[in-house]
Formats: sequence, C-alpha cells, structure tokens
Amino acid sequence: MRGLLFSAAICLATSPALSDPLPSWGSTENKSTIISFVESVTDPTSPDYVTPADRIAVFDNDGTLWGEQPVYFQLIYALDRLKTKAEADPSILTSDILRAAAEGDLETVAAGGVEGLLEILAVSHSGMSVDAFQDDVRAWLDEARHPTTDMRYDAMIYQPMLELLSYLRDEGFQTWIVSGGGVHFIRAFAESAYNIPPEQVIGSAGPTEYVDGQVMKLPGIDFVDDKEGKPVGIDSRIGKRPIIAGGNSDGDFAMLEYTTAGDGPRLGILVHHTDAEREFAYDREGHIGVLNRGLDEGPDRGWVIVDMARDWEQVWPE
Amino acid sequence: MRGLLFSAAICLATSPALSDPLPSWGSTENKSTIISFVESVTDPTSPDYVTPADRIAVFDNDGTLWGEQPVYFQLIYALDRLKTKAEADPSILTSDILRAAAEGDLETVAAGGVEGLLEILAVSHSGMSVDAFQDDVRAWLDEARHPTTDMRYDAMIYQPMLELLSYLRDEGFQTWIVSGGGVHFIRAFAESAYNIPPEQVIGSAGPTEYVDGQVMKLPGIDFVDDKEGKPVGIDSRIGKRPIIAGGNSDGDFAMLEYTTAGDGPRLGILVHHTDAEREFAYDREGHIGVLNRGLDEGPDRGWVIVDMARDWEQVWPE
Repeated sequence: MRGLLFSAAICLATSPALSDPLPSWGSTENKSTIISFVESVTDPTSPDYVTPADRIAVFDNDGTLWGEQPVYFQLIYALDRLKTKAEADPSILTSDILRAAAEGDLETVAAGGVEGLLEILAVSHSGMSVDAFQDDVRAWLDEARHPTTDMRYDAMIYQPMLELLSYLRDEGFQTWIVSGGGVHFIRAFAESAYNIPPEQVIGSAGPTEYVDGQVMKLPGIDFVDDKEGKPVGIDSRIGKRPIIAGGNSDGDFAMLEYTTAGDGPRLGILVHHTDAEREFAYDREGHIGVLNRGLDEGPDRGWVIVDMARDWEQVWPE
Repeated sequence: MRGLLFSAAICLATSPALSDPLPSWGSTENKSTIISFVESVTDPTSPDYVTPADRIAVFDNDGTLWGEQPVYFQLIYALDRLKTKAEADPSILTSDILRAAAEGDLETVAAGGVEGLLEILAVSHSGMSVDAFQDDVRAWLDEARHPTTDMRYDAMIYQPMLELLSYLRDEGFQTWIVSGGGVHFIRAFAESAYNIPPEQVIGSAGPTEYVDGQVMKLPGIDFVDDKEGKPVGIDSRIGKRPIIAGGNSDGDFAMLEYTTAGDGPRLGILVHHTDAEREFAYDREGHIGVLNRGLDEGPDRGWVIVDMARDWEQVWPE
C-alpha cells in the first residue's frame, strides 16, 4: 500500500502540467500556441477534446527533427559507402555519375538529378538484407562527423523538437516521422535519437524481396514520401488524418494542408531556419529545404511558423 | 484514497493471471502451448523474456480472424456494389467479366483471374475518397448478410481468436493484421470488430492520390500483401520481425516462416478449418484458404496447428 501511495505521489509530482514541458523554447507566442493547443485537445471538458486514439502527430525528419545542410545526411552516407566499396572494387564505378560520386564531386551528383541519385543508391542501399543495411548505417553514424560542426549526425537533432515529441507522447499522442528520407535509413536511429519506434516511421522506400527468412533490399524506388506523397503515405500507413503536422519545407506543404483540412482542432507547424549562427539560415532559395509557399500561405492558414533564432533558446541537446 | 484502494482491488481481481484468458479454447495441448509461450516471453525472470517493444503479433484476416467461405467477403462487397451501380447506370458494364459479375456469376468471375478481378475492383473500389469508401463499406456491413449463416459478415469473427488478441494485448503485445484483403476495406471494421486500430492493419492496396485535402482511391493494385508479400509488408510497415504469427493458409506460410526464423522464442499458429458443422471444413483443395505446405511442414517446424473442431469450444461470439 505504501508503494501505491508513493507511486501516486510521484505521478502528481511529475505531472507535465506543473512544469514547463518545452524548456528550450523561449516564452514567445508560438510556444503558447502549441501548449494551448495540446491542453485544449487533451482536456476532457474542452469542446476541442480529442480521444487518445486520434491524437496523431506527424513530423518531417530532415530539417525538422535533425539538420539537413549542406546536403541530406543520407546522401553523405551513400557517398561514403560508395567510396569505400569503390576502393575495394573499382569496377563498380560503371558510369560518370558513380565516378563523380566516389570522388565526392557533389556538383556533378546534383546535376545527375534523380536518375543519378538512383544509381548511387543502387550501389549503396541495396544488395543486402534490411538488418545488414541498418547495422551498417549505425556503424557509419558512430564514425562519421558533420563537415562544419564536427558533430555526430545523430547528435544534430533539435532539442526543442525532442521536447515537443516527448511532451506530445506524455499527453497521449502518437508521434510519427513522415520523411522523404529512406524508411530503413531513418529506422536505424529513430528509436535511440527520438524515442520513435520503427513502426512509427514512414519514409521513401525501394523494393524489397523476401528470401529464406530475410527481407532483402533491391535497387530502385517504389514510393517517394515527399510533397503529395506524404498524405498518401500517411493514409497508407496510419489510416487516420493527423491532428498535428510539423515540417520545414514546401515538401511538407501537402502534409500540413491535409492535416489542417480535417474537422476540429488542427495544428500545423513549420520550422523556419533563421539561425545562421547556431545552425543554418535558408528558406526561399537553394537545393534543400526550400520554403516559399509555406511562408506565403502558412500564416493565413493559422500555421505556427517557428523562427528558430527567436523561438529556440537552445538548438542542440547538451 | 478510497478510489485508489478500490482501483487496486479491481486490478487484482481482473488480473489475467488469475482467470482463464482463453475461455473458448478447450483444454488441449494447443491452448497450453500458446499460454506457456506468452507466459515465458512476458516473465522478466525467464531466459525467453521479450521487452514489450518487441512483442509484435501478426495475424492474417480471412479465415484466421473471420470467415472466408464461400468466397472472400470483400469480393461479395465488390459484386454487391457493382450490381447496385450497374442498376443505376448499365453503361459501366463494359466487358463480359463485368456483366457476369453484376449477375453474380461467380464461375465466370473466377475464370477471369486477377485481371478480371482488377476490372471489378476498379468499378467498386476506386473513384472516391478513402473516407467515402469506408463509409460505404460500413453501410454494406449493416445491410448485407452471409448466404448460408444469415449472419452479419462482421459478426462471423472467431471468438477464440478475439480472446487471443485481447489476451496478447493485455500482456503488452501489439496485435497487427497482415492480410491479402484490401487495407482500406479491413480498416473500415477492424477497430469495432477486433479492437485493432487502422495503423495496425496491413493489407493489399491500390494506388491513391492526394487532391485538395482528400486521399482518393485510384484503380489498380500497388501492393499484394499475400505469400512472400507478407514479410515484405511487415518489414515495410512494422520494421521489426514479429514473435507471433497466426494464419490459416499457404498464403501465410512465408509470414510464419519469417516470424519463426528469428532468434529467440517464436510462435507460429495455423488455424485448420476442420469444423463443417459449426463453420466450414476445408484445407488441401479448393479456391480459397488452401493449406498444403502448412499441414505438411508446420508440425516439424513447431507450429501450433489449431484443430477448430477439437480446440475451439465456441466459434462465434454470443
């Protein structure tokens, strides 16, 4: 009985309502908007109350939960692995794009477009089991360091977003990743980095094949989980319209539109990269994370536009 | 405090360990095997202990959780809807197979193979939003009755399997459906019939398209979640190897093989339809639910072969 009382006391003491659930967020209107939304949908006496089963929150990964500059981290992984494989067996470099990639010539890789990228992914991301691929991604994360911050890639995750994920889960939400990145790649670290289990990661995917007790990765792309593909992926995997969606680029526009087009309370969040000092500053131009339509239409749609420099007191975890 | 004590008392009184978790299962070896397995993987002192995050159980739907005779219930839905639409607009019957289907001529439909089936599904399962489709499935379930039992289709679910699902969830398992049936079709009733939410339903799927805040169903088939497609679907959606898999036909063989090929404790279950009196009896021959390899190899692989007539004291819910 003493144990029971003690547990109840602990529950009260650690109740999120009594402490700041988002300590790395500055005391701005955006923080208040997010907390008010969560409080209203979880308050059984509120007209906006949402049952736990429908508390679905979806988040983009690149540029929303972790960094994406100077290029998507998954591309750096692909080039690193291509280089290693080519050193062992140069005959795998069967095209100009593969030779450029193995030399780290990002300009030529970028000029090669999607077809070139698929060639690179075919060498680096297929021909092994899913288990072996994910072991390799984790080994890479242990050794690779970011070119400008010298940090581990999976340490370049945004502390304020970690707090938001954790706050939402404490309030009965499911927190899903809906990313243009590869689903097997993200699952290799999502649980340790974000506390998000594999079954709540949706991403782009190549074909796979079941052979003798193993699922093998094949070359090619089956599903691109970007732009209009994001609502399609959400419907396919979750089967419910989320009530919160967070992103950072126009690749997330359809996901936020789909989420906020539903009946009842809805929250759209866009992370605007405004912080060249602590992270990176970019929006309307560039090759990654372009944010035009979201900045133009987001405010009128009631979406929270997070100003990283102003809204976040801390960017990276300690 | 009185409330707290009362709650604690209720918890003890309803503890699964103190009552029979599978009351509709006869006291056979199969029942003991299932319960022993669950007890060993949930006992923290057991060498076979599995953490809750890895307690994934997957189940086929047609013939495993609900009936599948005389034909898949989803096909009956498709033919019913085709007939209704053709009565309103006969010009939609643009081929022999569609005309046969609208007349309920199952022999011609069966002879039309997969291509014929896709024609039928294109008329009955596409050209509307996912939400509208699922409303229609639920309306059909309310009105349609099974040709021989005169029961609602979603009442033809197996009471012993409902108990198994519920028992597993009580013991910290996630219970997933992995079905050759259409994912949108099954999600329309899985929550009310099985307490399985949409995000834990994997099934075959056609293409969809995001348009103006809605996900629309298009004709065609993108993914067939049957045979070797089941491990592929499990990897794609769950991203973990299950530790329990249940099915009833050779379409489930690869899923059980994949599940039981993993390290550590694994349980494969095949429901053998042996009960012509209360349900249906079929196995090695026929057009639906054929079970050959499972009967030949299952016992040597340590899989539980459920003998419906002997192992189940009750088939349908009250």
